Amino acid sequence: MSEAPLLLYTFHTPNGYKVTIFLEELKAAYGLQYDVEQIDISTNIQKEPWFIKLNPNGRIPVLVDRSRNNFVVFETAAILLYLQQFYDKENKFGFDKEKEPNDYSETLQWIFFAHGGVGPMQGQANHFGRYAPEKIPYAINRYVEETKRLYGVLNIRLQDRDWLAGPGRGKYSIADINVLPWVRIHAYSGIESIDDFPNVKRWLARAAERPAFQAGIKV
Amino acid sequence: MSEAPLLLYTFHTPNGYKVTIFLEELKAAYGLQYDVEQIDISTNIQKEPWFIKLNPNGRIPVLVDRSRNNFVVFETAAILLYLQQFYDKENKFGFDKEKEPNDYSETLQWIFFAHGGVGPMQGQANHFGRYAPEKIPYAINRYVEETKRLYGVLNIRLQDRDWLAGPGRGKYSIADINVLPWVRIHAYSGIESIDDFPNVKRWLARAAERPAFQAGIKV
Repeated sequence: MSEAPLLLYTFHTPNGYKVTIFLEELKAAYGLQYDVEQIDISTNIQKEPWFIKLNPNGRIPVLVDRSRNNFVVFETAAILLYLQQFYDKENKFGFDKEKEPNDYSETLQWIFFAHGGVGPMQGQANHFGRYAPEKIPYAINRYVEETKRLYGVLNIRLQDRDWLAGPGRGKYSIADINVLPWVRIHAYSGIESIDDFPNVKRWLARAAERPAFQAGIKV
Repeated sequence: MSEAPLLLYTFHTPNGYKVTIFLEELKAAYGLQYDVEQIDISTNIQKEPWFIKLNPNGRIPVLVDRSRNNFVVFETAAILLYLQQFYDKENKFGFDKEKEPNDYSETLQWIFFAHGGVGPMQGQANHFGRYAPEKIPYAINRYVEETKRLYGVLNIRLQDRDWLAGPGRGKYSIADINVLPWVRIHAYSGIESIDDFPNVKRWLARAAERPAFQAGIKV
């Protein structure tokens, strides 16, 4: 069996799912093929020297583009932007930097909002709510409340919109794919309901209907 | 006095300095002019309705491009990328997405590494070390140690390099500007010395020699 042009090192985490959802969208839209190697992060494979050579931060996911001289991309959002540039030539899931610079910038703004906010803060909620050796109410409360606040920001943005970026009601894009896998596991993070964020709730339901979204969270 | 083409809402924080350093570099390189409005975040101006209209996340910095129909950009790293696209036409501080796609991607990778790692984690170190109403040793230690780990990743990257992105020893770019203001205040965050990270220490000293860097942290 021949190798696919792309190899993804990943695991079943929200950051991993961002990339597998997008790869499934690209497969559905363009027939793009990719191979997956599961990295069981509970065994710290991602801290071994061969992996540190790929990503000195020792984190999944990491993409290797065999078709471009094994170029390596780490950091989830950088992988989405790379894939969008090289494998979404019709800009079905993103915007042209030169021809649609405002939409391109808004996509980046919402990607950074999630990458520096929702991801790390909800990640800390998971740590203090589930993994920390001591239960520290102050820290649990801090991160659950901050995650809710950030969902509230998304809820403002999604008023009268279907998707985070793009003109009018927006276009389903990597801006959405970059944050939905975190919102999807809100209950795991201690936010039992997102009923207080009705626009966010509808947005998540809208995305979850997509076959590629469903396939991506099963990779 | 006529208005400058750009208006920056900011404050003297690491995230604010990222943008003012880059604006000073653009001023030195191209003569770009900008106005500054200080937003004293201790008084929560950034949570007022007029500001939330600019950035629903209620955070500084926010850029308004008067020369492009008052287009608004929030999220520090998105501002750097926007400025690089529109006001660094010779790519002195970045790379061409189409002609230098690997360097462009590496720039994004290191920007996201900082935006999702150094910034939020060092920010939490500041919170628990300085601002939290209770001293929680577990949390203080967690974030100081994680920040050190991330500095260690930068130290690996900077082995045999002067700057984070670009071929050879690299080129001073928005990848560096995006993280240096955090590294600069390491002592404030509880990391008294960066002697354990000699490549990082030299990198910070190299940047700090630049007049625009010095001017940017005084805006």
